[in-house]
Order: sequence, then C-alpha cells, then structure tokens
Amino acid sequence: MVTIKDCQEIINKKLAGLSLPEQPVNLYDPIRYVVELEGKRIRPTLVLMGCNLFSDSIEKAVNPAIAIELFHNFTLMHDDIMDQSDLRRNKPTIHKKWNVNIGILSGDAMLIKAYEFLAHSPLAGLPQILEVFNKTALEVCEGQQFDMDYESTASVTLQDYLQMIELKTAILLASSLKIGAISAGSSEKNAAYLADFGRNIGIAFQLQDDLLDVYGILEQFGKQPGNDIASNKKTFLLLTALEMARGEMLNTLKYWIGQKNFNRDEKVRNVISVFDGLGIKEITENKINSFYDLAIKSLEMVSVSKSRKQPLLQFAEMMMNRRK
Amino acid sequence: MVTIKDCQEIINKKLAGLSLPEQPVNLYDPIRYVVELEGKRIRPTLVLMGCNLFSDSIEKAVNPAIAIELFHNFTLMHDDIMDQSDLRRNKPTIHKKWNVNIGILSGDAMLIKAYEFLAHSPLAGLPQILEVFNKTALEVCEGQQFDMDYESTASVTLQDYLQMIELKTAILLASSLKIGAISAGSSEKNAAYLADFGRNIGIAFQLQDDLLDVYGILEQFGKQPGNDIASNKKTFLLLTALEMARGEMLNTLKYWIGQKNFNRDEKVRNVISVFDGLGIKEITENKINSFYDLAIKSLEMVSVSKSRKQPLLQFAEMMMNRRK
Repeated sequence: MVTIKDCQEIINKKLAGLSLPEQPVNLYDPIRYVVELEGKRIRPTLVLMGCNLFSDSIEKAVNPAIAIELFHNFTLMHDDIMDQSDLRRNKPTIHKKWNVNIGILSGDAMLIKAYEFLAHSPLAGLPQILEVFNKTALEVCEGQQFDMDYESTASVTLQDYLQMIELKTAILLASSLKIGAISAGSSEKNAAYLADFGRNIGIAFQLQDDLLDVYGILEQFGKQPGNDIASNKKTFLLLTALEMARGEMLNTLKYWIGQKNFNRDEKVRNVISVFDGLGIKEITENKINSFYDLAIKSLEMVSVSKSRKQPLLQFAEMMMNRRK
Repeated sequence: MVTIKDCQEIINKKLAGLSLPEQPVNLYDPIRYVVELEGKRIRPTLVLMGCNLFSDSIEKAVNPAIAIELFHNFTLMHDDIMDQSDLRRNKPTIHKKWNVNIGILSGDAMLIKAYEFLAHSPLAGLPQILEVFNKTALEVCEGQQFDMDYESTASVTLQDYLQMIELKTAILLASSLKIGAISAGSSEKNAAYLADFGRNIGIAFQLQDDLLDVYGILEQFGKQPGNDIASNKKTFLLLTALEMARGEMLNTLKYWIGQKNFNRDEKVRNVISVFDGLGIKEITENKINSFYDLAIKSLEMVSVSKSRKQPLLQFAEMMMNRRK
C-alpha cells in the first residue's frame, strides 16, 4: 500500500520530467510555470489511491493521474482569466505574468497535453476512462458556467448552489478515484461506490471552505476571513441565511448586500451576527457532517478489505481536518 | 465511392443531430450557434474521403470526422478572441455576440465534445487516432502562437512563415485524411503518403489565399483585395518581396510598412507595383504549383487503384480552383 506522501512524490517526479518543446516559448513556458507551482496534487493522488485500493501495482494509473492534474491546472488557467484573478498560490497568474491570449492558448495546450497522458492509460480501460474523463470535463465547464451565471442571478437557490459545487469541484474528485479504479480493473459497482465517496467528500470540502471563510482562523485558513461576505459571494452560508431569515434579520442581510460603499469590517460583523442569530454555523457543520458520513458509507460499500481502505480514510480526514 | 457532396451531407446531418444539454444555456448555445453556421466542412469531408479511399464503408469514420470539425470550430472560437475578430462567416463571433468569458468556456467545452466523438472511433485504431489527433492539436496551437508572435517580430523569414502555416493550417488537413485512413485500417505507409498529400495541398491552399488577397478578383475571393497589404500582414508575398528587394524597391516597401497614417488605396497600389517589379505573382504561383505537384505525387504513391483516388483529386482541384 502506498501513502498519500508516496503518491504526491510519484506525481511530482513524473511532472518534473514532463518534456515540452522549447518553441514557441510563449506557449510552453506558461505550462512549465504552472506545473512547477506544485500545489497539493490532491486529484492525481486520488487516482493513484483509487488504483491502489484494488491493485498493488499503481504504475498503470500514473498516466491518467497526470492527465487529471494537467486538466485541473488547465481549468485554473482559464478560470483565472474569467474570474480576473491576479494571484494563484501566491504567484502571478498566467494572464497577469504574460497576457490573456497566452493564457487562453497555453491553457488549451495544457488540456491537449492532459489528453496525451490519458491516451496512455491501460488499454483495456481506455474507452471507459475516456468516457468518464470527457463527461467529467464537460461537467466541470458546466459548473464554471453556472458559477459565473449565478454572480448576476438574483434568485439562486440552495439546490442550485449544491448542484454547482458538485459539478465544479466534487465530480472531478469522484472521477479521479473512479479512473484510478478502472485502471486497476475494478468492477463497475466498486468504482461507482468509490466515486460516490469522492463526490460526497468533495461537496463536504467545498462547504467547509465556505464555513472557514466566515468562521475560520487566519492561521489555519491562510487568508483573511470574511472575503465571501464582503463580496456578497453566494455561499452555502449566505444562501441558507437568505432562505431562513425573516423580518429584521432579513432586512439587515439585504441592507448590507445592497450597500455599494461600506466599511468592510462593519459589514462582515453585521452579517455574521445575523448568521449567528440563525444558527448558520451549526447548520453548515451538520450539512458537512452529513456529506462526510455519506462518503464514509459509500467507501464501506466498496468490497475490499478494511485495511486497504485506510489510506483513503486518512485522506478524507486530511481533507477535512482544518475544521478540527 | 462517395462524392464530396455526399460527405458534406453526412457531416451536416450528423451535426444537426448533435445532442447538447439545455443548461447552462451560456455554455451550450454558443456551441449550437457555431455548429449551425455550417461552413464548407472541408476537414471532416477529408476524414470520410480518407476512409473511403481504402474502404467502402465510411460510417466508421463519421465520429472521428465530427471530432475534427468540432476541434476546428473550437480553434476558430478561441482564435477569434485572440485576434479580436468581430465576424466569422459574416456573423458576429461568439465573444461579440456573448462575451469573452463565454467564448473561452464554450470553446473549451467544444474541444471536450470533440474528444467525446473521437473516443468513439473504431476501437482497433483508437490509440493511433488519439495519438495523431493530440499531436496535431498541439501543433495547431503552436502554429497559432507563432502567428501571434510573428506579428511583433521584426525578422520573420520565409522559412518561419512556411513552418507556421504548416502547423496552423496544413497539418490538420493532413491529419484529417490520416485519421480517415486509420479508421479504414489502412497500412501506416499508405496513411503517411495520404497525409503528405493533405499537408502539401494545405500549404498550397494557404499560399493561394495570400496570393488572392493581392491579385484576386473581388467576386471570386469574397473580400476586398489588399487587406493583407494594408495591415502589413507578413504573407508569403510580402516576405518574399522583403527578401528580394534592393535599393529603391526596398525603400518603397519599408516606407509604406512604416507609415501610420496612409491612404489605403495608395499604399496597396504602391506595394503591388513593387511586387510586380519583383515578379512576386509568378514566384508565388510557382511555389503553389510546386506544393500542388508534391501533393499529387504523394497521392500517386498510395497503393490503391487510380479510380479510388478520383474524389480526392477532385477535392484538390476544388481547393485550388479559385486561381483558375
């Protein structure tokens, strides 16, 4: 059995050996730059661990794992352009360091490179892996589009929001595990349970991100809490509050959402006091726990020995331990 | 044997039946819009004809043909953003009709849709088809990057230019034929000769486009001649002229290239007179003919009966007949 750290090392080593042409530099330098930013390699690690759940030889899952990581990086490159983000992992984003055109085109090339690695998946599983990957990739695009649409939509429901984060974030985690399982030749049933585990952990993780933005501690969270409140971001917390609040509390929420010029700290404080009045923290924690429990139950359904599941249980805990 | 028109009809019918989700509309409406613009369907027709050269059943090449057409449309969507083009086939481009973000994301989704169809290529040829497609797709990105780079590069050589149009345009024609051939189960040797035919026709076609911009007749060319001259576009004609011109002729070229404010017709007239003095029209025609001849020779090398090659010969003539 391999550990999470083993997986990350395998991925980083393989990516460090990524061979790209020298020319045109403006196409390939941005890809080199993004790949060298590293990051946590969560998704490719899940591919390897999904494989390792069923098989002791994980080499066959390395190419699809790299494909998933390159795909994820491609989405970050294009999302950063669309969201006009200047920084990613504390470094300038591609379209800031180079320009938007280079960001678009090197992102495209990154997606194609992802397919290059995917094409070198185990041959027996190739058609199924391609199908899962293509479906997932489209769904991630759908999630990003819904996310952009919701910025200017007045009436986003909690259900809309949950569907959006499922598409944008959770399904890629699910499919990473599933592709790993297929690479190992697992049964469809096992692969599906494993994917459910990943999907539910993914949703729990995203909801926790929303929670930490409001109730997190700076040192643990790595950024100033309250950004989502200040920017009126439609998170699980705000949408839940808007569905629940009545009278004075609803007025307070609407007042602060409608303010164009405001004192940031004052807005954050006032919105949090409404959240507190409605018990939003506990509601969110309960929701996170229910998705987490669903995940664990799905993992229990996978018919392999308990001991083989240990690394994935550790992974799930690691994903969530910021709230502990 | 199928005709060019048969192929176009098969492609249009298949694309008309393209099933896309309703939601999110901002992701899928642009794809529907682009697909409905139709166009000449040159590349997917080449896939079907490449298959038909070796096999009487071309249904097996329909999915990869659609993949190639969707890929081509994806490149147009993103190129139009990068080149800030407002019109495509006389209709507003996606980023004009919607916005840049929607252009980026629906382009991404279109590329993924292309891979969805590609994954349904004949299973026996799938790994090889994926390899050809991925390599080609990256080369098309390289061509687009070189094209953008050359806009601000002072010293672009003729060789640079020929390499760029090969990457940006010719290789996709070559690979369309090759993927068709692989779908039919042709030998590697035959597929390679066929690809050479497509590559040389592609280069000849692009050079002819350069020629027609200067020496074309409005009705035949569909746009006002002289646009490339007015915009200092580094075409085969201009680069050849810059390599050949000396003394007064070189000064005239450099003068008009350097002018910021100018009378369009005067600039076009003066540059053409230098071209005429250097015999650029004939040089370009000779170059086109030499690539065309190379193409025909490559097609002759494919070991199938002459009669099977007739549709492809017709296709080559159709691609070039604007100069006749």
